[in-house]
Amino acid sequence: MAENRIEGRNAVIEAFRSGKTIDRIYMLDGAKEGALQTVRREAAKHGTPIRYVSRQRLDQMSETGRHQGVIAETAEYRYAEVEEILAKARETGEPPFVVILDGIEDPHNLGAIIRTANAAGAHGVIIPGDRAAGLTATVAKASAGAINYTPVAKVTNLSRTIEQLKKEGLWFVCADMDGEPMTKLSLRGPIGLVVGSEGNGVGRLVKSKCDMVASIPLKGEINSLNASVAAGVLMYEIVRQRDLA
Amino acid sequence: MAENRIEGRNAVIEAFRSGKTIDRIYMLDGAKEGALQTVRREAAKHGTPIRYVSRQRLDQMSETGRHQGVIAETAEYRYAEVEEILAKARETGEPPFVVILDGIEDPHNLGAIIRTANAAGAHGVIIPGDRAAGLTATVAKASAGAINYTPVAKVTNLSRTIEQLKKEGLWFVCADMDGEPMTKLSLRGPIGLVVGSEGNGVGRLVKSKCDMVASIPLKGEINSLNASVAAGVLMYEIVRQRDLA
Repeated sequence: MAENRIEGRNAVIEAFRSGKTIDRIYMLDGAKEGALQTVRREAAKHGTPIRYVSRQRLDQMSETGRHQGVIAETAEYRYAEVEEILAKARETGEPPFVVILDGIEDPHNLGAIIRTANAAGAHGVIIPGDRAAGLTATVAKASAGAINYTPVAKVTNLSRTIEQLKKEGLWFVCADMDGEPMTKLSLRGPIGLVVGSEGNGVGRLVKSKCDMVASIPLKGEINSLNASVAAGVLMYEIVRQRDLA
Repeated sequence: MAENRIEGRNAVIEAFRSGKTIDRIYMLDGAKEGALQTVRREAAKHGTPIRYVSRQRLDQMSETGRHQGVIAETAEYRYAEVEEILAKARETGEPPFVVILDGIEDPHNLGAIIRTANAAGAHGVIIPGDRAAGLTATVAKASAGAINYTPVAKVTNLSRTIEQLKKEGLWFVCADMDGEPMTKLSLRGPIGLVVGSEGNGVGRLVKSKCDMVASIPLKGEINSLNASVAAGVLMYEIVRQRDLA
């Protein structure tokens, strides 16, 4: 599935300045032109990761043949602002319910989690700017269209976003095997559920910002669940507690 | 991922008679040889589906070049007997907890469900002989190895298996959108959870054998979940009720 691509120095700088969400920059390794420095500054400002690659690689990626040392990969679907997620919660009159994904790289898992977030009545999903799958057509398909309804925000720094949302009254629960069994925790009220990647779990810093750590009871020989299944089980434990009379 | 294949009339008949599990037969369309009639009889006896294909297709599939009009696809992993699943429950001293999949065709979903069944402490998984993914290497990988611990039985007739398990004291709950919210049902005691495919849900006849129909509350615009997420959410509702003091 081809990503949308923007090629060339001015086109990429223009895309940043127009507010377009850029998932990743591919830049010629060792290049020093001033315009590329400007691209680097814009990327840093927006938290966009840069991969330094060979000229051969850029030539292969290029569709126009005129990349001038830089190609930007853009999201196929629009990212929301975190504020839009809070606004959605306010509209419904419900306490906010936000799902935060720390490094889900598999687009099928990301799509399935957005789908489940929609079904569970979460008001939005937040993903980090780096180490995460972007909103590609594969993600959209796996989301069964939920991507058109459930806002997905991309932020530069997850820990900082968690700090900000705490000021809005949210409590944060992090999914981790070493936590309290999920059904023993109180997961009602305004809540952010933080789920990590299958390989690495939730990052140490992000975990340290959370108020609670919740585990899913594991009763067999296998010591983890598929990331989208784990996210689903936890989201529906939150739904269950919210729906208690 | 190549399936294991057995080619040739006598080899296939021998495989059936030795008790090997054959997932599917590919047979030359229009062939009338007596030995192929014997293959048909064995297939009918074991509930193995036959696909009639052209000579060109068989020639393409053949690795030996000597298929004699018939190729059998065998499971890479051993199927268990339903009795082994019940024996596993007796060993643990727990009331049986069985997951029945009615037509899950996606091997990633099948693998993820076997993984979740293991994690949730289910004693086994039952799949039908037709319209279902077999235990291929793709399924094994998606199961994260759970396929080596959690027995998977393949049966000719799901409704009949449900009838037999009812005599063993199991109650059956079917997952369907039109059911009672899962948390309102009593899902304790010996239980069979029946989950259907994403497209078609649980078949009418199988559903009619179930004692209860359970739904997962859907609060957004999307009216279904990924099959492995839905199975996980339901399995963990059963776990929650079992763990209640």
